Amino acid sequence: MKLNVTQKLIKDHLVSGEMTPGSEIGLKIDQTLTQDATGTMVMLELEAMGLDYAKTEASAQYVDHNLIQVDSKNPDDHLFLQSAAKRFGLYYSRPGNGVSHPVHMQRLAKPGKTLLGSDSHTCANGCMGMLAMGAGGIDVAMAIAGEPFYVKMPEVWGVKLTGELPDWVGAKDVIFELLRRHDVKGGIGKVIEYYGPGLKNLNAMDRHVIANMGAELGATGTVFPSDKKIKKFLRDQGREEDWIKLKADKGARYDIDEEINLSELEPLVAKPSSPGNVVPVSEVAGEPIYQSYIGSSANPGFLDFAMVAEIVKGKQVADGVSLDVNPTSRQMLTNLVQEGHLASLLQAGSRLHQAGCNGCIGMGQAPATGRNSLRTTPRNFPGRSGTREDSVFLCGPEIAAASALTGVITDPRTLEMDYPQLKNPKNPKIDNNLLDEPLPPEKAREVELYKGPNIASIPEMDELPDYLEVPILLKMGDNISTDEILAGGARVLPFRSNLPEISKFCFEIIDETYYDSGMNTRNHGGHAVVGGFNYGQGSSREHAALAPRFLGLRIALVKDFARIHWQNLVNFGVVPITFVNEGDYDKLEQGDVLKFTNLRDTIKQTSEFTITVKEKGDEIAVRHALSERQVDMMLHGGLINWMKERKIQNNK
Amino acid sequence: MKLNVTQKLIKDHLVSGEMTPGSEIGLKIDQTLTQDATGTMVMLELEAMGLDYAKTEASAQYVDHNLIQVDSKNPDDHLFLQSAAKRFGLYYSRPGNGVSHPVHMQRLAKPGKTLLGSDSHTCANGCMGMLAMGAGGIDVAMAIAGEPFYVKMPEVWGVKLTGELPDWVGAKDVIFELLRRHDVKGGIGKVIEYYGPGLKNLNAMDRHVIANMGAELGATGTVFPSDKKIKKFLRDQGREEDWIKLKADKGARYDIDEEINLSELEPLVAKPSSPGNVVPVSEVAGEPIYQSYIGSSANPGFLDFAMVAEIVKGKQVADGVSLDVNPTSRQMLTNLVQEGHLASLLQAGSRLHQAGCNGCIGMGQAPATGRNSLRTTPRNFPGRSGTREDSVFLCGPEIAAASALTGVITDPRTLEMDYPQLKNPKNPKIDNNLLDEPLPPEKAREVELYKGPNIASIPEMDELPDYLEVPILLKMGDNISTDEILAGGARVLPFRSNLPEISKFCFEIIDETYYDSGMNTRNHGGHAVVGGFNYGQGSSREHAALAPRFLGLRIALVKDFARIHWQNLVNFGVVPITFVNEGDYDKLEQGDVLKFTNLRDTIKQTSEFTITVKEKGDEIAVRHALSERQVDMMLHGGLINWMKERKIQNNK
Repeated sequence: MKLNVTQKLIKDHLVSGEMTPGSEIGLKIDQTLTQDATGTMVMLELEAMGLDYAKTEASAQYVDHNLIQVDSKNPDDHLFLQSAAKRFGLYYSRPGNGVSHPVHMQRLAKPGKTLLGSDSHTCANGCMGMLAMGAGGIDVAMAIAGEPFYVKMPEVWGVKLTGELPDWVGAKDVIFELLRRHDVKGGIGKVIEYYGPGLKNLNAMDRHVIANMGAELGATGTVFPSDKKIKKFLRDQGREEDWIKLKADKGARYDIDEEINLSELEPLVAKPSSPGNVVPVSEVAGEPIYQSYIGSSANPGFLDFAMVAEIVKGKQVADGVSLDVNPTSRQMLTNLVQEGHLASLLQAGSRLHQAGCNGCIGMGQAPATGRNSLRTTPRNFPGRSGTREDSVFLCGPEIAAASALTGVITDPRTLEMDYPQLKNPKNPKIDNNLLDEPLPPEKAREVELYKGPNIASIPEMDELPDYLEVPILLKMGDNISTDEILAGGARVLPFRSNLPEISKFCFEIIDETYYDSGMNTRNHGGHAVVGGFNYGQGSSREHAALAPRFLGLRIALVKDFARIHWQNLVNFGVVPITFVNEGDYDKLEQGDVLKFTNLRDTIKQTSEFTITVKEKGDEIAVRHALSERQVDMMLHGGLINWMKERKIQNNK
Repeated sequence: MKLNVTQKLIKDHLVSGEMTPGSEIGLKIDQTLTQDATGTMVMLELEAMGLDYAKTEASAQYVDHNLIQVDSKNPDDHLFLQSAAKRFGLYYSRPGNGVSHPVHMQRLAKPGKTLLGSDSHTCANGCMGMLAMGAGGIDVAMAIAGEPFYVKMPEVWGVKLTGELPDWVGAKDVIFELLRRHDVKGGIGKVIEYYGPGLKNLNAMDRHVIANMGAELGATGTVFPSDKKIKKFLRDQGREEDWIKLKADKGARYDIDEEINLSELEPLVAKPSSPGNVVPVSEVAGEPIYQSYIGSSANPGFLDFAMVAEIVKGKQVADGVSLDVNPTSRQMLTNLVQEGHLASLLQAGSRLHQAGCNGCIGMGQAPATGRNSLRTTPRNFPGRSGTREDSVFLCGPEIAAASALTGVITDPRTLEMDYPQLKNPKNPKIDNNLLDEPLPPEKAREVELYKGPNIASIPEMDELPDYLEVPILLKMGDNISTDEILAGGARVLPFRSNLPEISKFCFEIIDETYYDSGMNTRNHGGHAVVGGFNYGQGSSREHAALAPRFLGLRIALVKDFARIHWQNLVNFGVVPITFVNEGDYDKLEQGDVLKFTNLRDTIKQTSEFTITVKEKGDEIAVRHALSERQVDMMLHGGLINWMKERKIQNNK
């Protein structure tokens, strides 16, 4: 059978399942990536699992999100992550080194490999001929521990590129074009694979831009072939030996076919407040701006910054405009210095920030109230900038630079200058400090985890009891989001490394007494919650399952679940069940006590069973959707216990 | 009479008073400096006074403190400050341009002039042959409005410098030596004036370092002569025409005499947690560090950064050490780029931050819990770094660089390298973007103040009534600090531009009901508070007077006042009175009502008078310490009303 690149990557890593779109497959994971916002919990999970040493070929822990150190919490987290990286045999990237995705691409990415990361833009490294996917923290912890990653076999969406980008049109406009056509849900369940003659005009970093924002289409991943452009990129990184050729077989087919003629594209902009809200720049030209922001994993390359530098060179930023320059790595910054571009950016009056994610994830550089911000970042969801009711437009570097000069959103083709003809540096500088090497196992075992006062190990969790009598502490309606289960934001997130502390915020929007009631049940048999449709929608944060579990949640009984939260509940040993008859929802009240007998055997043997409402005596038919593997995990009390058990067995 | 430089500067600007140490003098102010943390209130005061246009020769509004934009409050403040600078005819320095003191020195400072600034390190510009002093916000507002600055005639403390600094010893060690000898209160009531043959070996930026940290001795100011070194500095800034020669007359004398032989100095360090805690570096060498931090107005010069760059060039920062580089201006950064030093800093693995005050004032870069931080900043008061129970050592750039390489506090003389022989760039770059020019008056008058949702004008305040019946809302003990009156910190400070909002935090540590009770009296005759000794000690923040006044405070009756808070009460129209017989304090209780009759004439005619406790009928003898000028202000209801009245009279 003729295979496309995605199918080749999957076939090479298939551990279980059939390559039929929609069916679950298990994939061997070669590399992982964690960042600091999600990584502290991953490291605590590794500790709880009792992991000895990473089983992947390369795993890297980056610090790029929480760079603002207004008190000791973030620096304490950094030291914890550094100690965990040493303890578990991971690479470690210090704060200020840069954004995980471009740094990973520069120092570790290898064609033909799989990469799993606890960051939704992990897909960016698909530009390197990798199968790179974002996932929840514990999925990445499992991968570090050598377990496969389970995912539904995606459809492969072939996008044939033809032609060549016109002057003033960039890689960002390619992915904007796809978002314009298919909007933010267009890629769900799919891997987007690019091919065709247009590829020869897109270098590795152009492809990074396109692959990165595959996340904005909801795609499982984005895949590019590994060709001469990738070879050139690796040579510039001093890593030519890591290159292999990886192309689709001649005559390979795709599940879905699409074509983009690069020659026909024009400069595009995503209007507030969705990356799918794409229009030609001409449609919004003239809108006054407060800020022009460059940086992030969506435009991380040397040429992205050099383009801005060349456009503003010898000119001045418009009065009242903040041109915020966010280097994506120290290596990239060093090359900007070397080639004279940083000098151009500075003399034009720009504001240079430290290397990292920064404003892209709302860590600084929030715009003023009611003012437009123009950004080369990947997302403009409402409030993501830090400012309520913000107005963020997304664009490529050409538009950002042109608009910084004029003070209004500007079609760069209207500038009175020739299109800058730019090349990557002939002798690019390599920054070997970007990653601290993993310690060898014997050294690693000597390392103690460093835990500041805000970092707490994950408490032990018991296995699933055979008999449960659990009071319903909350009865909720439809569409309860993970933000209602456990809020994000600056008040709650600093406790991301401390389960007992973060649990205090659990369900507080719905019922302030939940924490106290939960704590009362914690060591006395636990409790249940009841919900309606689409329970657990929204953010994928695993704390929304872990924190209620810590407070004694054993059963979530709802009409139906949002997919990721369901997965998180399973991972942390909360039994997720649904009503067989939705009308039974009305029979239950807060305070009712649910009785489960012979629970362990029951969930092993059947997916439908009956529970009793104590005192009322009502019988309620429920079902679970756990696979055999998941039932096994559940019996152990969740993934962490399951892994611990396997470790003990392996050591026997 | 033979005059020293300080006396010449004072004589040239004397508006009222006698030049006898200790007696009040009024000084004409030529230039002012405000930063964003204090400047928003200054601009609101100018608005409340109805100022048309700045009356100074040059006034500049800098944005260097609140650079972290996690929501819209700081950027809204920046836009407000920019609009106010345009409206009132001030220079404006955008966020990210740099720290006020070095930028002012580069672009505006002029020998022979006076400078008043709402920042305690304003004294730094004394290096330029100026009389430069820090003051409260409203003092600076008054100066912008053309009013004299009133201060006690200082003693002049002549410090004769001889010899030449040895290798590895820098300007920072000169001021450390003075702190070692005299500690943090040694300069109170004095201007420190440097002279002597050693000066020829200290360039303008060396002198900035020394003058800046005069604040740490509590000095009113620091003065250097204007000589060839200053001429050279101004020439490098393209402003040679601003130079005048300014030296002490031959045979001029000083009130206090001191001598420092530069040749005898060694590298010094200030241990936690006071800048006066100075020891030779050898005494603390070997202490492990988490962080080496360079930047701030205490070591802001090109050579300070170049020194670090040369020391770390071609080497690597020690494992686990964060070398935080904080450029002090974009101009300085541009020159670092130009001369190759930034490349050296980057390749050594440093972390480059935006230009500004940053960690020096606790805005980022807080150290991890229990770890040592080594900083070239001026202050290491407990907690100032943002981390509770922090451990901050102060030093010069040589020690910071050497220690970053070794990971422990290191005497730079033990490095195996020659002392770098560095010079300022031959053709230094000038950044004309550092200051936006003031608008001419006719343009300025067209500008509207831009106020984001968190910025509120200062409400109108009534004049002093002739009859008062005021309940005592609080009776407090001794040593009540301004932190207890109105806390600082991240919870309260974001409301610095909004008097009604910040007032909600007033006295909350002492009595949570104060805000509500105060609001009840606000439009019904007001209220009083009673206190013990040293009332209003601590931070100089004027909000601690303004906010209670907003809530209706008219009378503060205490055993005695801390100096600055007393001044602030006067400025905002609260009558500060003390007990003639301290025993009367015991006669008063919370809830008692104090009666003042014929108050306006009384405070004009006498400093001692009697008030009645209603119902109890007790008579209490009290006194005030207001000057004639201050009584006049008080009758108007405070400085703002007084200025408004003068404006109306001037327009007649």
